[in-house]
Amino acid sequence: MPDLRRDPVIGRWVIISTERKKISVEKNPVENEEELKTCVFCEGNEHLTPSEIIAYRKYGSLKDKPGWWVRVVPNKYPALGIEGEIHRSAEGMFDMMSGIGAHEVIIETTEHNKELPDIEDRKAEDVIWAYKDRIGDLRRDTRFEYILIFKNRGRAAGASVLHPHSQLIALPMVPVKVKQEQSGSKAYYDFKERCVFCDIIAMELSDESRVVTENDNFIAICPYASRFPFETWILPKRHYSHFSDIEKYDVTLLTQIMKTVLDKINKALDNPPYNYLIHTNPLKEPNSPFYHWHIEIMPKLTRVAGFEWGTGFYINPVAPEEAAKFLREEV
Amino acid sequence: MPDLRRDPVIGRWVIISTERKKISVEKNPVENEEELKTCVFCEGNEHLTPSEIIAYRKYGSLKDKPGWWVRVVPNKYPALGIEGEIHRSAEGMFDMMSGIGAHEVIIETTEHNKELPDIEDRKAEDVIWAYKDRIGDLRRDTRFEYILIFKNRGRAAGASVLHPHSQLIALPMVPVKVKQEQSGSKAYYDFKERCVFCDIIAMELSDESRVVTENDNFIAICPYASRFPFETWILPKRHYSHFSDIEKYDVTLLTQIMKTVLDKINKALDNPPYNYLIHTNPLKEPNSPFYHWHIEIMPKLTRVAGFEWGTGFYINPVAPEEAAKFLREEV
Repeated sequence: MPDLRRDPVIGRWVIISTERKKISVEKNPVENEEELKTCVFCEGNEHLTPSEIIAYRKYGSLKDKPGWWVRVVPNKYPALGIEGEIHRSAEGMFDMMSGIGAHEVIIETTEHNKELPDIEDRKAEDVIWAYKDRIGDLRRDTRFEYILIFKNRGRAAGASVLHPHSQLIALPMVPVKVKQEQSGSKAYYDFKERCVFCDIIAMELSDESRVVTENDNFIAICPYASRFPFETWILPKRHYSHFSDIEKYDVTLLTQIMKTVLDKINKALDNPPYNYLIHTNPLKEPNSPFYHWHIEIMPKLTRVAGFEWGTGFYINPVAPEEAAKFLREEV
Repeated sequence: MPDLRRDPVIGRWVIISTERKKISVEKNPVENEEELKTCVFCEGNEHLTPSEIIAYRKYGSLKDKPGWWVRVVPNKYPALGIEGEIHRSAEGMFDMMSGIGAHEVIIETTEHNKELPDIEDRKAEDVIWAYKDRIGDLRRDTRFEYILIFKNRGRAAGASVLHPHSQLIALPMVPVKVKQEQSGSKAYYDFKERCVFCDIIAMELSDESRVVTENDNFIAICPYASRFPFETWILPKRHYSHFSDIEKYDVTLLTQIMKTVLDKINKALDNPPYNYLIHTNPLKEPNSPFYHWHIEIMPKLTRVAGFEWGTGFYINPVAPEEAAKFLREEV
């Protein structure tokens, strides 16, 4: 008999159906394509991207020239435009808004085939610093309500360039899914007077069956109502709402746990395509007692089909306890 | 400058970004694999499926033998089990429920390579009758709260068998996405005292730019805030909430418009993978003034990536006005 499990934050039900043997997890390793000659993100090809916004680079090296290790550039094909005013209007009964926003690319390394786990610690930390610095800069622009940091790795996860990179999108509204997470965690807080994420962390630490790894300040778990096989969340043990309030020592510890978790996922699942996302508070919300930022990592091993789209709930053929055990034991 | 458009039912924002030329729509035709020898849904292989629940078949032909044209069988690998009682329980702070439900397959034709548009009208209508009959039977089981009818066509859309078939899942709870649609349309009704879907139909009929086709009782549109290129909705012009209240003449007209729309999509997009879903009222809700059943068809032409997952809103590189024009002109 499959389990139906309810996500404690937004109330989403997930079917954990490990008996459906037929739906095996498809290993789908990221292609190791030779893009090197034309890769727009490789060192030496800086002229192929729009001019850099920031870069961490050798003292004395020149903008848009080699010498960097993390580099942030505008997306050449932005989903939203940075120029102009927010303009809301009606089209008959419908509502529209001008597509103002920022869309940036964080190039994580000069090397085409290196992923975060392979990058030396200090340079890997600078990927996290780039996330934080860009949010700090863009949040001063009062047109924006939300900033999403995400990574698509591998074509099946939506990456159009294979060179390791993350993306940032600044939006003029708070997206629906973020609102759901806000209102779900607020409802829990109103009832319990505790943060639902803090409760999850305490419960997972005492139970241990869904813990992938932890360090002093962060924990990685396969969540109780995982939508996807090997879905993994990384949460700070200390409660705070905005990712961008992260402190220096936590950047080090976050980098460490991300390297560990991604390395385990790569080894366990043969370098799968994946997405990760930073879930953080809307820009104009104060630090709140109910919202707790975190990172959600979703390996792309199954196809999302009609059933999931229609109902907003998911059939997951791998129990999170099994996934966590497998990842925990992967050296 | 891209448009941001808001779905009038659930408030989901969509970016219509036709300037992102780089993200072209990927044509991804359904594989024409030779599965014939082993296809479990082909005529003559009835012994390879669980015993049929219902079939429309020649008078005098035998159960689980040839002679049928539409056949409904239990899913051999069900996501939910039909036997047992609903049991809700706590696992520490978490909530779970026994995975009770029904999971059935509607085999739409005996012929492996025929899709709905190729099936003769009377037999194609029986696919719709099978949907209606199965809902009518299962809704008598008081354990169930919602029945979803959906179709995955092509492997990229999640189909594991290529022989044309739809699926039915009966669930012991109302899924989150259905609740959102209910509460969104109720909020609109509370404000306007009109059904939001009826308003959409009236507006689209007067504007015409997003209409794909229509007949006396149904309209097909590319919705204003389409999430996906060539997303198409079919709505009954007459207001009612439960798909299963469809009357005989409407079965004929629904079959006709579905055949037309799917034929246009197949020709325009070279037989793409797609999903469709019937959005209908929860089983125990009465017919309501605010909810209006409809079918959503989603060709699978782009990959859903991290951004969409994280925010619940979508970047669509094809304006629905362009998509509707293209489909309208496809003979």
